[in-house]
Formats: sequence, structure tokens, C-alpha cells
Amino acid sequence: MKFNIALLAGDGIGPEVINEAVKVSDAIAKKFNHEITWTPALTGACAIDAVGVPYPDETHEICMAADAVLFGAIGHPKYDNDPSAPVRPEQGLLLMRKKLGLFANVRPTFTFPSLIDNSPLKRERIEGTDLIFLRELTGGIYFGEKGRKDDGETAFDTCTYTRAEVQRLAKKGFELAMTRTKKLCCVDKANVMETSRLWRETVQAMEKDYPEVTVSYEFVDAVAMRLVQWPNSYDVLITENLFGDILTDEASVISGSMGLMPSASVGEHTSLYEPIHGSYPQATGLNIANPLATVLSAAMMFEDAFGLKEEAEAIRTVVNKSLEQGIVTEDLASKDSKAYKTSEVGDWLVANL
Amino acid sequence: MKFNIALLAGDGIGPEVINEAVKVSDAIAKKFNHEITWTPALTGACAIDAVGVPYPDETHEICMAADAVLFGAIGHPKYDNDPSAPVRPEQGLLLMRKKLGLFANVRPTFTFPSLIDNSPLKRERIEGTDLIFLRELTGGIYFGEKGRKDDGETAFDTCTYTRAEVQRLAKKGFELAMTRTKKLCCVDKANVMETSRLWRETVQAMEKDYPEVTVSYEFVDAVAMRLVQWPNSYDVLITENLFGDILTDEASVISGSMGLMPSASVGEHTSLYEPIHGSYPQATGLNIANPLATVLSAAMMFEDAFGLKEEAEAIRTVVNKSLEQGIVTEDLASKDSKAYKTSEVGDWLVANL
Ligand SMILES: CC(C)[C@H](C(=O)O)[C@@H](O)C(=O)O
Ligand SMILES: CC(C)[C@H](C(=O)O)[C@@H](O)C(=O)O
Repeated sequence: MKFNIALLAGDGIGPEVINEAVKVSDAIAKKFNHEITWTPALTGACAIDAVGVPYPDETHEICMAADAVLFGAIGHPKYDNDPSAPVRPEQGLLLMRKKLGLFANVRPTFTFPSLIDNSPLKRERIEGTDLIFLRELTGGIYFGEKGRKDDGETAFDTCTYTRAEVQRLAKKGFELAMTRTKKLCCVDKANVMETSRLWRETVQAMEKDYPEVTVSYEFVDAVAMRLVQWPNSYDVLITENLFGDILTDEASVISGSMGLMPSASVGEHTSLYEPIHGSYPQATGLNIANPLATVLSAAMMFEDAFGLKEEAEAIRTVVNKSLEQGIVTEDLASKDSKAYKTSEVGDWLVANL
Repeated sequence: MKFNIALLAGDGIGPEVINEAVKVSDAIAKKFNHEITWTPALTGACAIDAVGVPYPDETHEICMAADAVLFGAIGHPKYDNDPSAPVRPEQGLLLMRKKLGLFANVRPTFTFPSLIDNSPLKRERIEGTDLIFLRELTGGIYFGEKGRKDDGETAFDTCTYTRAEVQRLAKKGFELAMTRTKKLCCVDKANVMETSRLWRETVQAMEKDYPEVTVSYEFVDAVAMRLVQWPNSYDVLITENLFGDILTDEASVISGSMGLMPSASVGEHTSLYEPIHGSYPQATGLNIANPLATVLSAAMMFEDAFGLKEEAEAIRTVVNKSLEQGIVTEDLASKDSKAYKTSEVGDWLVANL
């Protein structure tokens, strides 16, 4: 098969981790007789520096024309201290999500047996955890009307959802639950928010179409607790944009493998794959960043965007092997073992595929 | 001194835990020569059952006339499955907060040496944790305009904050930080929300009045992570209503002592003290609920509402002693030790004051 992949390396360590994911993807393509064309495009702080906006039209066209998008990370410290600056890298991220119609962010949290003791949680709490959040990504308070009144003394943000927006996200949740343990948790704040009541009634009405799926409805504050107490009691969770932002990040640290967690954003026009970690500016150019989350994001891309399960499994298998054999970057290296460079980890993966 | 305390026992185990807090408070009053008058009033599901509304006017008048309010818990399972029911216990809670002007919810999270191994987190992550959230409690999306449009197909909630609302909460945060390690964290989502940008600029402008306080600004998603990773890196945190709801609950489970955590809500007219746990309906009437969070809430009341530090310390000391000697309810009893009843724990505290 032939694929055209848009390559958005972004800022900070983005280009370094993307580079290794490209190496591994190319090796997989060669092994399984596929042909990948990579089309690089600018986004984030580097796009602001080059052309003045964080998500240029040209980048958007490249993404729209691609079969999938592989994304690194964006963000630069020079934008950190002033969230009201007129142009910021994150705005590019939000614009990209909206324009590409990436309405569902897929965020798995699972454990690697060899890394389980890195978790801040006790082993018995975290063992067996394998959950997936579906976070709504193009609606809610992120995109509602916002502004100031009374000479700037009053600020407001509006959270809006339509039934159709809830349905398309929930549909993905039910379908995903059907492929797993058939447990779906709808996270909301229906005791306070009207949008949450719309979420809940919409999901309740869909239950009859998926009689095998057991749905639970939990308040966001209760989920924030249970994620720390009994993460392995969850399977698929669906939630709106802002709750998803908070809870997926909380979930990401419980596994002890945050540097390895991949993600996908899927939607109307294309799908995008990215590590959940940020641009880690302090490490830029040092060749020390962990490339595995990006490599595993590429595996998700092979499986979900191209339907190539075997290729995805081959990537996951070699990643597991590298972990078992301690071919890891400094974040995962134990005190008395060698820390490999970003590019050395990539080379080892390619050589051992 | 003479105090008039409104007593809102509420639902479920509320009356049982309140009963023990009253016993301990009366014993303290006797010991230190104070006189307490308790005025019981209805709230929650029991108020709905009795008079049709969850926060009756009569209850409000009793609270307004009191020097402080001691509160149990509200909520009943018959209201759980329908968040859109016209009358619900939680509405009483929100109305009470608003009408009493309880704009700051004070939620400490600390560890008890003897309970530290109950935490889902590893000992080295949690040791030394002693943080306090100040959650804004009468504004934000809880109280903004909300409703439906387009024949019910679109729902909206509005989050609104004024500069004055942020200032009065932040002022408490700075003042509290001054009495502790002088570290203040402002939690927001200023990269997305206009209300958060107002929060951040307001707090930034106040920094010059508290030159000794070091302020950090962190996004809510990052705090949700760091609370699990390094809870003891925080001291005082200030945040808006909804973020505070989620994060204070998350923080409550990390200590391993959730059943012991007290809280206060302070404001314009009076102050209210309550355990952070819920009404635990399954345990109602069984005399097994842990009364210590309510007893420690009474200690906060003595110290903060009445300025009686010695009395508060006496309560905390006897609570610590009960924990060390294993005079605890079943939630804290170890496998081979006796579980005491709710009232037995209270009796022991009174006898050992
Ligand atoms: C950078 C920020 C706008 C973004 C979000 O809140 O969605 C990030 O936290 C994320 O989760 O991808
Ligand atoms: C019951 C609910 C409305 C309430 C809230 O969200 O404030 C509760 O979760 C709390 O934190 O006291």
C-alpha cells in the first residue's frame, strides 16, 4: 500500500522524537512492502517564527491531503509567562483540531510490566490497568463564546454542546467498548451543569442500541478520585473537552510510563497521532528525549488509520523488547545502567524489528 | 465564651457523625469554660421530605443568626439516578453556599503518620504532604446562566468571574500563605479560558502587596498530574469553583486518610465546617461511620471561627491518640484488630480529652 503522511514535528524535542518514529515507520514499510511519502509542515512556535501564525494555511492543506498526520509536540518557553499574548503556539493546536474536525481524542493508559515500579502508585493499585479515554476535542468551553464585560472587570466563557456532538463521540465510545470488556463510563457533572445533563440524557438514550454494553454515569470529581484509587476498575470512559483535558493528564501519570503514552485524534477529515508528552524545551537538541511514545503513536496510526494490525504489533513487540533489554533513554535508565541516546534507541528498534 | 452553633446534620450518616462531634465539642466547652447552644436545622433530602425544599428559609435564618455552622453530609440514593429531577439535595447545598456568601472553601490535605500506608501512593511520594486548597465556592460555572436552545438540542453553561470575586479569594490565599511556607500556586487554564486570564492577571497584580510570597501559575491539567506525582511540592493553592471541585477531591484520596479530612467554608456572614466525605447511605443507622473528619471539622471551627487555638489543639491531640491506640471504626481497623462503633470512638475521645 501507499501512504501520504503529513509530518508536523513542532517545537522543542518534537523534531528529535519524530525523527525516530519516521525511521521505525520506514523500516516497517520496507519490511511489509508499503510505500510512505512524508510531507513535512510547520506548526507551533516554529511556525510563528517562520510565518507569523502557529497553524499556517499551507500546513492545513498538507494535513487535509494526507492519509494521516504524525505530530510531535508544540510549545516554547518564550510564550509561557503570558497566556494573553496575541499569538501563541496553543492557538495553532486548537485551530488545527477544529479545522481538521478531530472531534475525538483517544487516550489509552496502560502499564508495561517492566516499568510498573516507576508509578507513584503502589503496584497492587496499578497492575492490570488498561483504560481508554475518549475526550471530545472540538467543542465545549474551548470553543464557546468568551470575552470581557464591564470595562474588563468581568470575564466569561461559555460551554456549549449539541446533541449531535455528544452522539458522535458517544457512538465511538460504545463501539470501542464493544471491542473490549463492554464497560463504558460517562463522566459528567450532571448535578450542576446543563451541558452535562444533555450528555447524560443523550448517552442514556443510546444505551438501547448497545444492549451488551454496561454504562455507568459518574461525576467528574468522583472519577478524579477513583482514577487514583482503583484505575484498573475502568475500561472505556467518554467525556467532554475540559474534563477530558484534566482527567487524561491525571491518568497519564498513574501508569509510571507517561513518557511512553501515545494518543490519536480522529474525526471527519483525517486522523492525527502524537505522544502525550510536551515539547520539553530544556532537552531540545540534546538527543536525550524518549522517542517511544511517538513510535507507539506511529503504531496506532498503522493500526487505526491504515488498518494494518500486524505492522502495529511488530512495532509494539520491538518496543517491549527494547524495554526488557534496557535499551532506554535516561528517563527510564536505572541508576547503574547505561542511558541510550534518542537516536540510539531508534537505531536499535530498526535493527531489531 | 458563649457560642450559638447551627447544627445541620443532613442525610445518611450525617446525624451519626454530627452526634460525636457535638459530644466532643461539649466536652471541650466544659473543660475550657465555654457555653455552646446548638440549634438544629433541616437540610438536604430530609428537608425535602419534611418541607419540600432542600434548604428551607427557616434553616437559612438559623444559620445567619449563628456564630458558626456545623454540617454533616447530604444526599440520598433516591435522587442519584436523575440529575435533572426538579428538586435535589445538592441544590440546597448550592443555595446555602450562595445565600450565606461562603465564597472560600478551605480544604487541607495532610497525612497521619499512622495511616500513611493506607494511601494508594507510595510512602515516599506522600510523606510530608501538607497542602491547602482554597476553592472559590460561590461563582463560576456553578452559578452562571445555563439552559437549552434549539428545542433542547443545544445546552449551554456560562462561567463568569469578576475581578472583585477573584481578589477576595486570592487575598485569603496570600494571607494563608504568609502564615505557612509562603508558597502560593494559582491554578487556572489561562491558555484557553478568558475567566482564567482574569484570574491570572488579578493575582499577578496582587503579588506586589505580598513581596514575601512566591507565586507559581500552573494549568489545571498540570496540577492534576503533579498532585499524584509530588503532592508534597505544594503548599497553598487557589482556584476557581469547578477546578477546585475536581482537584480537592483528587487530593483527598492521596493521603490515605480521606475519612478524616475536615473542611471549612468561609465568607461574608458566617462560616461552615463539614467533613469532606459524603452521606454514605449504605451505612446509615449502623453506627459504623468514621466520625473523625467531623470531629476535626469541629476543631477547625474552634480555631478559625472562635479563635480558640488551644481548644482546637486539644481535639487534634486526642484524635491522634485514638489513631495511635487503634480506637478506630472499621474503615481504619486492621485485619486482626477490633473495629469500634461510631459512638464508641466518640465516647473514647470524650473520656480521654
Ligand atoms: C495546550 C492546551 C491548549 C491543550 C488542551 O488543553 O487541550 C493541552 O493541554 C492538551 O491536552 O492537548
Ligand atoms: C454535590 C455537588 C454539587 C458539590 C459540588 O460540586 O460543589 C460537591 O461535589 C462538593 O464538592 O461539595
